[in-house]
Amino acid sequence: MDFTAERRLDDGVLERSFTLGGIPGILWTPASASAQAPVPLILLGHPALGLDTMYPRLAARAARSAADGFASATIELPGSGERPRWPAAEQARAALRRAMAAGEPVTDEIVDALVLPLVDEAVPEWQGALDALLSLPELGGPVGYSGGVISIGVRLAVVEPRIVAANLYAGSFVPRATFDEARQVTIPLHTLLQWDDESNDRQAALDLFDAFGSAEKTLHANMGGHTGVPEYAGDAAAQFFTRHLR
Amino acid sequence: MDFTAERRLDDGVLERSFTLGGIPGILWTPASASAQAPVPLILLGHPALGLDTMYPRLAARAARSAADGFASATIELPGSGERPRWPAAEQARAALRRAMAAGEPVTDEIVDALVLPLVDEAVPEWQGALDALLSLPELGGPVGYSGGVISIGVRLAVVEPRIVAANLYAGSFVPRATFDEARQVTIPLHTLLQWDDESNDRQAALDLFDAFGSAEKTLHANMGGHTGVPEYAGDAAAQFFTRHLR
Repeated sequence: MDFTAERRLDDGVLERSFTLGGIPGILWTPASASAQAPVPLILLGHPALGLDTMYPRLAARAARSAADGFASATIELPGSGERPRWPAAEQARAALRRAMAAGEPVTDEIVDALVLPLVDEAVPEWQGALDALLSLPELGGPVGYSGGVISIGVRLAVVEPRIVAANLYAGSFVPRATFDEARQVTIPLHTLLQWDDESNDRQAALDLFDAFGSAEKTLHANMGGHTGVPEYAGDAAAQFFTRHLR
Repeated sequence: MDFTAERRLDDGVLERSFTLGGIPGILWTPASASAQAPVPLILLGHPALGLDTMYPRLAARAARSAADGFASATIELPGSGERPRWPAAEQARAALRRAMAAGEPVTDEIVDALVLPLVDEAVPEWQGALDALLSLPELGGPVGYSGGVISIGVRLAVVEPRIVAANLYAGSFVPRATFDEARQVTIPLHTLLQWDDESNDRQAALDLFDAFGSAEKTLHANMGGHTGVPEYAGDAAAQFFTRHLR
């Protein structure tokens, strides 16, 4: 893990860019974090739009978590941003665009091709990032996962025991395999659904919430469209992590 | 409005029983409430089980609201508790019990007979209680409504302009007329759904949430059964009122 840049933000948060085996990432630590007082870590998931595009939203979420005493970290997804192009992913996206442009149904095959290779590739990368991040003396357990891609969050919740709580965002395309994995999830879950987000499948989000095996699971549905998550919904998610990462 | 008893609870809350035109009720005011510093009021809705039965849950909700600086008040529903028996309501309940015992569907006719007369009778009573309560110098606006019966809460949200925010609990039986009224609701709403509560109709709760006309509406779904609303769900509802009644 090589730190490539760092800067101190207005609120005292230390923002460090890093690369890990060629994968770019960002780590935000609150001013209070030190080897003597390591802080819990939240992994910030995001859609495959590239870290540069996602930066403002990720940085805002990291600032909020830092105010609650948590570090945050994220890495670039395979095929996104500055990472090498990934022909299989591009073909899957092209197939999706063709179907949508033609007004045809988005079949299970298209969704599987779009999401499952991404999950298979990304999840070990997030686990590798977790290894490297948790070796830093200023970071301690436990770890939370927050954000999309929901199929990545679900897989991580199942396979990664260091993740003890997850805040998952409803996703547009959910493979059947994710529903099967959801039944194996047992960690506390907080899930967000933008009710009137036409780019999400509301019924799939409700079905997925129903499928989760967790004894503690909460669904918060709000208005405001895809990027219009109200501030109080962010507050509720922050309180969820404060309950589970402290 | 005649006060019939009063006592000071441990947390300084003043609990007063009253009757208003023969309807029993309870008013809880925080220690801080005075004519110089009137506090907002939350009307506490409840199912038709009688105030004595509901008292522990209502008192706990009132204590929480008092800690946030709000008064709470509730009145007995028609035909419940010490109020005169109401043959129409008892016939409707008997018809419901017969259908459920026989494993027959609960028809729209049964639901309408069970709920609509109750709404028609209760809503003007709650409005009358509001007139009397708001004439007390220690109570000021604005007013919130919190709890069931959801059809009463929906009607009040439509017809009573002094109610500026409502926290509604998913209900077991929702008449079609309530869905029509829901479209006319425009005040901010916070709604609670116990996801695995077999005595509630989950799909009806989701459909009703969808129907509400409010630009700000939030659905919080949790596990824990009918009376197992988690403490953090109560916190979220309290934060909703703090946003809208301050």
